[in-house]
Amino acid sequence: MPSVDLTSPKIHGRMANAIRALSMDAVEQAKSGHPGLPMGAADMATVLFSRFLKIDPANPTWADRDRFVLSAGHGSMLVYALNHLVGYKDMPMEEIRRFRQIGSKTPGHPEYGHTLGVETTTGPLGQGIATAVGMAMAEKMLAAEFGKKVVDHFTYVLASDGDLMEGISQEAIAMAGHWKLNKLIVLFDDNGISIDGPLSIADSVDQVKRFQAAGWRAERIDGHDAEAIAAAILRAQKSGKPSLIACKTIIGYGAPKKAGTSKAHGEPLGADELKAAKDKLGIDWPAFTVPADIAQAWAEVGKRGASARKDWEARFATLSPGKQSEFTRRMRHERSPKLAKAFTAHKKALIATPQNIATRKSSELAVEVIAGVMPEFLAGSADLTGSNNTKAKSAVAFSAKTPKGRYVHYGIREHGMAAAMNGIALHGGLAPNGATFMVFTDYCRPAIRLSALMGLGVVYVMTHDSIGLGEDGPTHQPVEHLAALRAIPGLRVFRPADSIEVAETWELALQRTDGPTILALTRQNLPQLRTDAKANRSAAGAYELIAAEGGKAQATLFATGSEVEIAVAARKLLADKGVRARVVSVPSLDLFLQQSAEDRAKVIGSAGVKVAIEAGIRQGWDAVIGADGLFVGMSSFGASAPYKELYKHFGITAEAAADAVLKALA
Amino acid sequence: MPSVDLTSPKIHGRMANAIRALSMDAVEQAKSGHPGLPMGAADMATVLFSRFLKIDPANPTWADRDRFVLSAGHGSMLVYALNHLVGYKDMPMEEIRRFRQIGSKTPGHPEYGHTLGVETTTGPLGQGIATAVGMAMAEKMLAAEFGKKVVDHFTYVLASDGDLMEGISQEAIAMAGHWKLNKLIVLFDDNGISIDGPLSIADSVDQVKRFQAAGWRAERIDGHDAEAIAAAILRAQKSGKPSLIACKTIIGYGAPKKAGTSKAHGEPLGADELKAAKDKLGIDWPAFTVPADIAQAWAEVGKRGASARKDWEARFATLSPGKQSEFTRRMRHERSPKLAKAFTAHKKALIATPQNIATRKSSELAVEVIAGVMPEFLAGSADLTGSNNTKAKSAVAFSAKTPKGRYVHYGIREHGMAAAMNGIALHGGLAPNGATFMVFTDYCRPAIRLSALMGLGVVYVMTHDSIGLGEDGPTHQPVEHLAALRAIPGLRVFRPADSIEVAETWELALQRTDGPTILALTRQNLPQLRTDAKANRSAAGAYELIAAEGGKAQATLFATGSEVEIAVAARKLLADKGVRARVVSVPSLDLFLQQSAEDRAKVIGSAGVKVAIEAGIRQGWDAVIGADGLFVGMSSFGASAPYKELYKHFGITAEAAADAVLKALA
Repeated sequence: MPSVDLTSPKIHGRMANAIRALSMDAVEQAKSGHPGLPMGAADMATVLFSRFLKIDPANPTWADRDRFVLSAGHGSMLVYALNHLVGYKDMPMEEIRRFRQIGSKTPGHPEYGHTLGVETTTGPLGQGIATAVGMAMAEKMLAAEFGKKVVDHFTYVLASDGDLMEGISQEAIAMAGHWKLNKLIVLFDDNGISIDGPLSIADSVDQVKRFQAAGWRAERIDGHDAEAIAAAILRAQKSGKPSLIACKTIIGYGAPKKAGTSKAHGEPLGADELKAAKDKLGIDWPAFTVPADIAQAWAEVGKRGASARKDWEARFATLSPGKQSEFTRRMRHERSPKLAKAFTAHKKALIATPQNIATRKSSELAVEVIAGVMPEFLAGSADLTGSNNTKAKSAVAFSAKTPKGRYVHYGIREHGMAAAMNGIALHGGLAPNGATFMVFTDYCRPAIRLSALMGLGVVYVMTHDSIGLGEDGPTHQPVEHLAALRAIPGLRVFRPADSIEVAETWELALQRTDGPTILALTRQNLPQLRTDAKANRSAAGAYELIAAEGGKAQATLFATGSEVEIAVAARKLLADKGVRARVVSVPSLDLFLQQSAEDRAKVIGSAGVKVAIEAGIRQGWDAVIGADGLFVGMSSFGASAPYKELYKHFGITAEAAADAVLKALA
Repeated sequence: MPSVDLTSPKIHGRMANAIRALSMDAVEQAKSGHPGLPMGAADMATVLFSRFLKIDPANPTWADRDRFVLSAGHGSMLVYALNHLVGYKDMPMEEIRRFRQIGSKTPGHPEYGHTLGVETTTGPLGQGIATAVGMAMAEKMLAAEFGKKVVDHFTYVLASDGDLMEGISQEAIAMAGHWKLNKLIVLFDDNGISIDGPLSIADSVDQVKRFQAAGWRAERIDGHDAEAIAAAILRAQKSGKPSLIACKTIIGYGAPKKAGTSKAHGEPLGADELKAAKDKLGIDWPAFTVPADIAQAWAEVGKRGASARKDWEARFATLSPGKQSEFTRRMRHERSPKLAKAFTAHKKALIATPQNIATRKSSELAVEVIAGVMPEFLAGSADLTGSNNTKAKSAVAFSAKTPKGRYVHYGIREHGMAAAMNGIALHGGLAPNGATFMVFTDYCRPAIRLSALMGLGVVYVMTHDSIGLGEDGPTHQPVEHLAALRAIPGLRVFRPADSIEVAETWELALQRTDGPTILALTRQNLPQLRTDAKANRSAAGAYELIAAEGGKAQATLFATGSEVEIAVAARKLLADKGVRARVVSVPSLDLFLQQSAEDRAKVIGSAGVKVAIEAGIRQGWDAVIGADGLFVGMSSFGASAPYKELYKHFGITAEAAADAVLKALA
């Protein structure tokens, strides 16, 4: 039994004030930050953490903990104050004092992997709530697979009106409502204030009605009434639907002049207002301190969590050892040795029976192989299943009624899909991959960036990767997308050239559990070029596919994906004219550029003429071919026509490449 | 009076069937395309076009025409069939036969500027409805300014469930509801089918309730009942709110086997099903023909439109000549000569009194100047007005009550803002610019791409353009964004270095009425470096800011924006060591790379050592400095700290640049 009655109004008030005090102090000291949200949301957070949230700060990654997502990441001091109070070991008062300073555990927005207890990186609005949908999906899927005694937790979100204005929130709530993710509970900090002024200058959406329209349970309460908050959370926990609790709050609660105004949002209160706020709130203890009684009350959270974790461990111990190690393996994102074996066999079969098919079809072959040996493999598509070729024959659709389903029909919600995959990867236990057309990476980009920033092993299967898409025309044809994606730090972009490279890059993508991968795949058929598959030649990003014949190479043809076939044909045309050329396949330009200078030089070679062939823009290729290198590719948007005509129209042909080489040699 | 009774059920049916027949025939002939939507939506479209839509096909750009947006752009044959039937001169039957072939007027998705009567390019779902919101905003604003006798038209949208699943649709409908854009009427083709199967596998949102929650008038009708459609449009026209008419339809209406299934969505029906569909629908005329009675009925649309246009011209003629020419100038996106004069005076004042301020503040100075002489200047921000510095002091917020307001609080809806700006630019009469943090260009990217693809003079004011943003940390710090934006064909990216370059690039952005521009601006203060302002030196993308002294340059320092200051300081450090270096300011790398090889060579110069300094990634710079050039910038995500510390931490300093040069020369 807790030694402190956390439901006593007095204790609740002091606990909440401890959050407010630390938030005000830290922002003031940093001379920047957002005091308004932590002050306004302190009551909600206090009730949630002190009475409900199942976490064990001493074991921050315990599998069945509740997940808490501060979608309104600018209110980061709320999390840091809570984490200090509940005793995460990386959050001593010293770190609160170092808010927003270099190397601190308290950056401007909460960063996953940087600070214990931060379940996802937030700040870009809308991402938190959409990522939380993925966490709740994973919980539902794993509970169905491993049983409720091992997986049975809530995902709580604290969201702001900014989160709900972002379009991605609609995609997320539609998914959550459709799948009846009843363990997802969103506390909406309904303070009616945005940066530009009262929310009413820009918004008049009735959020409760909107969430209800999406299949949610939704209600409005007073966000400063602890008992109302607690009662609403209890109702939400019992609901068969996801829940929105719209909590009417006052931003900057307690600040005499700034509370309830946008002045409280994103800047220090200033010394006078800070003092006045503390006076008004009854905060009579020094800055950066916590009175003993409050500290003791907050310590109860850890005690309750530790006890819950021990109970869980006892339940977990009743599983068979095999099941235990399987669950642990999956939660750690470790791959079964079966996977590598399956790929080896698959590649051997491809060598024995070459496949001259589109790389999206080669990918489908790989997916069949993977799905057979990797129960955590969770594929999906944003309503392009038949075009993305992402569904294994055996895969069943995930739904409210079939939570064991391992295929997700995300609907036409690319951004929501990407964010949900981040949440699934963060949750652990499942390896998410999702698909759409390559051009729509633009729609997912903010979430792809977060995959990279957080280092999540999400796989993006992006088909129809060039003008090779054909008749759908320029709105659907990627041109700048390879360059734009390669630009994202930490994101790996593969554009395999044939069935073997597809297998190799799928394997590399799945083995990469600390960062995201894009697979750019064709709509059009391609020949199988590779005749060997013993070593994973894609692993270094580029390799010599065909050497020059009859002497030192005079030209090197670099190409990716569907253009490797063109490079091979150009090499033949050149050979017919007595010119010696070699072909380098570049399944990943970004990975190749990360190799050592020596290794790169070896692959690039010393041939005087260098040509890159890619049905995209030149940007990025100068690093390989030099500023004076030759480039055969795109410099404008595409057009609508059958793809073979487009390749001719835009001059991406073996003839054009060969002619360029001949001209350079002349 | 029309010579044909278009409301007769028989005539309506035959008119709709003419659309269905052409759509089936064209898709069949192209061997690709989407017959399902045109067949299902033919009744809605026929009622809208034959009884309501105010267009004059002989004068496709008449200012006060109704706008029709096919948000579900994959149903392009609906538009092409309609455009053929109502008599747009670029849409003879020959073009219908050439559906999806190179150079035809009938590409896979409708393309603005390519085909008459296409008001906006659609295909990427959700964009059409959001762009239409911008059109309706422009209509409301201009009606308030020029009066209803000159501006008084509807904006109609035909949207699919895919459009409504996309997050951007929520941003759009929230804006439309908030501003009470009552002239916006959305016909929702509620066919319950998505590509992966019945919509119910991925969605269960009650769209009517959702739109109502956003302040819309919304109702459900039978989308094959012509009178119900007509009555609903009439009710919508009279409403004080934007209207959603959810029209229950059958995709592929008439196809005996495929109607009502996803099989009807995105592929030819096949010869047998096509024949059976025509039999069932009573289409007894040959492929690619239109019976005379149907042709005659459809011709009435043009007659009604021509008459409405003449009435409008008569009303327009009652305006004063000055008002007439002003309206015409603005609808044509021509700039007043006052603008150039104002910039000249502004730059002169800056030279006289240099401003050492952040470029976002320099931009604010420019905005004040522009707003004073350019009544069509329509600024806004996605809830970061005080940070983006986009609001002129005199500017009044646009709202339902103040439609003359020329400042838009877009709310936290970057994507919706960008798409709305496209719609405003497409409408004509206003010059939209909107702002957010540079990092959130990721959120707007699909709409920015469309600005570029359509060649619209939209200006994106993107502040906080690097790690110079400081404490907000990596989620808010652009690193890859300059490269990723430069990659988009036709988009111009400026990153000005001081107050003069800000003025120059603002002027270039506003004079560029055939393509979009990004202005990347700093949060941090910068010195005014330029001492001259007679020529617009930013116009060529790059120029020598400071020459080497004392002989031929040994090194060239290229830099953009906030890093030009660093380049200047590095030059000084080098001079102290006896090394001669010149500084080239590169306000636009993409524009510079479009200059002639000769002009580029002149600016790049022949100094042996080349260094680029930019607080972003290297990608793209090799084209200037060569693959062996030196780069001082970022290669990872940023961090949370005061910005001066971050520049040191990431090694973007004058010392680092000077050291790199010295090392290269050693």
